[in-house]
Amino acid sequence: MLLLLHRAVAPGLRQACRLKSTHSRLCIQACSTNDSSQHQCPSLAFSTENSSTRGWRVMGTLLGLGAVWAYHDHRCRAAQKSPHIYTREEVKSHCSPETRIWVTLGSEVFDVTDFVDLHPGGPSKLMLAAGGPLEPFWALYAVHNQSHIREILAQYKIGELSPEDKMPPALKTSDPYADDPARHPALKVNSQRPFNAEPPPELLTETYITPNPIFFTRNHLPVPNLDPDTYRLHIVGPPGRKPLSLSLKDLHQFPKHEITVTLQCAGNRRSEMSQLKEVRGLEWRTGAISTARWAGARLCDVLAKAGHQLRATEAHVCFEGLDSDPTGTAYGASIPLARAMDPEAEVLLAYEMNGQPLPRDHGFPVRVVVPGVVGARHVKWLGKVSVEPEESHSHWQRRDYKGFCPSVDWDSVDFDSSPSIQELPVQSAITEPKDGEMVEAGEVTVKGYAWSGGGRAVIRVDVSLDGGLTWQVAELDREEQRPRKAWAWRLWQLQAPVPPGKKELNIVCKAVDDSYNVQPDTVGPIWNLRGVLSNAWHRVHVRVAS
Amino acid sequence: MLLLLHRAVAPGLRQACRLKSTHSRLCIQACSTNDSSQHQCPSLAFSTENSSTRGWRVMGTLLGLGAVWAYHDHRCRAAQKSPHIYTREEVKSHCSPETRIWVTLGSEVFDVTDFVDLHPGGPSKLMLAAGGPLEPFWALYAVHNQSHIREILAQYKIGELSPEDKMPPALKTSDPYADDPARHPALKVNSQRPFNAEPPPELLTETYITPNPIFFTRNHLPVPNLDPDTYRLHIVGPPGRKPLSLSLKDLHQFPKHEITVTLQCAGNRRSEMSQLKEVRGLEWRTGAISTARWAGARLCDVLAKAGHQLRATEAHVCFEGLDSDPTGTAYGASIPLARAMDPEAEVLLAYEMNGQPLPRDHGFPVRVVVPGVVGARHVKWLGKVSVEPEESHSHWQRRDYKGFCPSVDWDSVDFDSSPSIQELPVQSAITEPKDGEMVEAGEVTVKGYAWSGGGRAVIRVDVSLDGGLTWQVAELDREEQRPRKAWAWRLWQLQAPVPPGKKELNIVCKAVDDSYNVQPDTVGPIWNLRGVLSNAWHRVHVRVAS
Repeated sequence: MLLLLHRAVAPGLRQACRLKSTHSRLCIQACSTNDSSQHQCPSLAFSTENSSTRGWRVMGTLLGLGAVWAYHDHRCRAAQKSPHIYTREEVKSHCSPETRIWVTLGSEVFDVTDFVDLHPGGPSKLMLAAGGPLEPFWALYAVHNQSHIREILAQYKIGELSPEDKMPPALKTSDPYADDPARHPALKVNSQRPFNAEPPPELLTETYITPNPIFFTRNHLPVPNLDPDTYRLHIVGPPGRKPLSLSLKDLHQFPKHEITVTLQCAGNRRSEMSQLKEVRGLEWRTGAISTARWAGARLCDVLAKAGHQLRATEAHVCFEGLDSDPTGTAYGASIPLARAMDPEAEVLLAYEMNGQPLPRDHGFPVRVVVPGVVGARHVKWLGKVSVEPEESHSHWQRRDYKGFCPSVDWDSVDFDSSPSIQELPVQSAITEPKDGEMVEAGEVTVKGYAWSGGGRAVIRVDVSLDGGLTWQVAELDREEQRPRKAWAWRLWQLQAPVPPGKKELNIVCKAVDDSYNVQPDTVGPIWNLRGVLSNAWHRVHVRVAS
Repeated sequence: MLLLLHRAVAPGLRQACRLKSTHSRLCIQACSTNDSSQHQCPSLAFSTENSSTRGWRVMGTLLGLGAVWAYHDHRCRAAQKSPHIYTREEVKSHCSPETRIWVTLGSEVFDVTDFVDLHPGGPSKLMLAAGGPLEPFWALYAVHNQSHIREILAQYKIGELSPEDKMPPALKTSDPYADDPARHPALKVNSQRPFNAEPPPELLTETYITPNPIFFTRNHLPVPNLDPDTYRLHIVGPPGRKPLSLSLKDLHQFPKHEITVTLQCAGNRRSEMSQLKEVRGLEWRTGAISTARWAGARLCDVLAKAGHQLRATEAHVCFEGLDSDPTGTAYGASIPLARAMDPEAEVLLAYEMNGQPLPRDHGFPVRVVVPGVVGARHVKWLGKVSVEPEESHSHWQRRDYKGFCPSVDWDSVDFDSSPSIQELPVQSAITEPKDGEMVEAGEVTVKGYAWSGGGRAVIRVDVSLDGGLTWQVAELDREEQRPRKAWAWRLWQLQAPVPPGKKELNIVCKAVDDSYNVQPDTVGPIWNLRGVLSNAWHRVHVRVAS
């Protein structure tokens, strides 16, 4: 969390420098200092939990320079004046730069007009709270629950709510995540609200099928609590045709199709990118990938039932989840119609995961499963399906989950210039031994997973014990690989003698798929500002017991 | 044409000014004049046909100043001497600045040594013809067919060909390759028998469609000389069905399907692998790739006509060529039936290449074109098609064209352990500037191609001038990229400032396809004993003129 916050703060401050504000001169000085300290400060390379203290110090420095210097006059003002009393109605009327922007936390009132452009999550997110309480948003984005953040906020205090207005409406104080399901304690949590967590590497490749409780979880919003009896899936029909409204029972009437599919988040292994240079996103290690046996109706059957056909022009199937943010915006994504309508692509409206009804964290009662395609398109808690001439207009389709040249930063990024990620590139990672571990002399066992997008089978995994100078071929599991439909990963292992006298090993793995695509050697040249598509050779450094 | 020529002339002249020649002083004067008139002259900006007259005048001026002044003595020499007689052998020996550079046109012999640096298309293009006839090049680049060009050339005439050399040499009969067709002299020959040759990089990306005469040629055997009137293509039917025996005319009865497809040999860029460690195979540089517009019958239509259907179990379509070795073994290869039967995969039995009947070197009268798949499966001089439960038993399917771990050598290789190459991985290469070249300070133009297998579109090409430390996004051509059917390459270029003070540039390119697969950083870890699948970043080292 601290790391996340720290990473998010610096660009926010930099960005603020470009904006006209009454403090621009002071701010620019502060930011210049930050920029140079960033480039030189080795602590920016930290990545483990142990270094969070150091991260805290760095963040403190950054905030100290950026926020404290820039808002010195606010602090003075706050200290000098005795608290003023405001009603909720008055606060509500201050919701734009023209009227100034007020928010409340508890019984306190803050004028955050001058902070909006400095907000690390972007001005638009903070503007959602303009004229009202911060609590519902801080509940969504738990990163705010830090004493340091409260200190920053304190600088903007302008008064108190009137006694009769101190109790906010009951609905707004309730935690939107309060109803999230219980989770397995083995999961390594990257974010509690929304919940994002991965299985630890030592469990990840224990079994070919990932048990439901430790299947990696990528939520963008609170988990909806849906009643299977009243659940309806809306399939918008083509022009002139009525929509379908399918109950769970209706969906069960379609032929049941069952396939083993590996899901991978676009951000899997992001932590390796952020070690190199700051990125925006959750610090996934090697575990944002898991494999399950999915069962459900084929999307092509359901679309056909609704009257849809393949079209001569390019079209897209848009999915909308029943999860939504406080403004009512649902999660959404889309895939090309050609994939959706192709029976061989086996796109599912899945209601079973490993023989069980979908767990709530994985989309109960119905989610999309798009074999070979990035996890972001496997929309959970599916509410609506429509066929459109364009891709989904969802933020997550158009303004996220895209790759860019390493030279592109948040100032220069043009999201329209890059295609949305669909099929993922070839990937592999080592799950055993772990980085920094001590291994026995004699023989070492290296284990891991390998997978490629688009149904391309992994045909080989090469392992090196000397950082990539020499290679050995790992043994692949014997699970079936259907031609063109190799939707699931291959687990692999290599047992190899430790070269005598070696004090340490630089273990590397790289996979090859059946289009003979390979992983790039290093992460730097594929680095991108969102930290997606991190598929360079995976490297683990171990010491050899003597 | 004139515009083209005119545009090409000016930089050619400018360039010539920097090179040492016996006329350098006179030339520099002339060029300085040209340079200043160029910068001021608005006619350089013309682009419509209406301004061609003006362009002609400008060109006339340029040539008048550049060519006439500079080569006054040549004209005098040509007028004074009586024509000398030379043999083709003598002409052939004059192919470098050291021996002087001779070319022929018709029966005339020219010493163009002093014109090479003035050649509007660049010295390297003219050098392709050194020691031989100009006709094949002028046929490719029709811009030369101007009386004015002939006048310029006339100034360099030094004599005539001997009478017996005016006709090209007669065929030798005992040689199995004696009946091979004549080839374009621009082709860089990697092997004469069988004939294997690639276009030089400076021609490769001149045009999006590669002209037939310089399309890379990969023959495994002598070129058969087939009579289109008696030619028959045998399509073996499923059990219980008669085979089809199709004449060329029969094949024309199927719906004609036309697509632009890039073909690439699995050995393209092998020379970079063999520089590292010896491999077995032809020394292809970056030119074992070319693009043409192909037309023919769709394989799926022909197979359906013969009674074939998709099967529940995996099957393969086997192709046999009419080229064969002295033991009668024909070239053969196969592709999966699923690809062959998929109309969207657009597999062709092609009889046209760029609007012409197939040239003999490219499979006359019929070849297979398998979009997105390695060249080795595009069987030429097609004689037989059958559907089999297994891949083709041909040597080239089972004992060649497969990838292996770098640690595998000829003692340990097990060809059955690796799948035959079908779809190729993402690829790109730099065609301009050339390795070792000197580039101007100021701005550098980098050009090249990029392509990926399986119909995956190239979505981005990154170029680095500093060996991969920093990257810039190249500009891609605007040719149509059909979703899932991006069968053809994208040409790209980058114009970038040369960092001031740089004495040399390590130029690197890497492409990304729409599955976000990327090229590996280095060739070592993808090295394999056959030298196939060489798709590491392409690197070119150049010096900067000071």
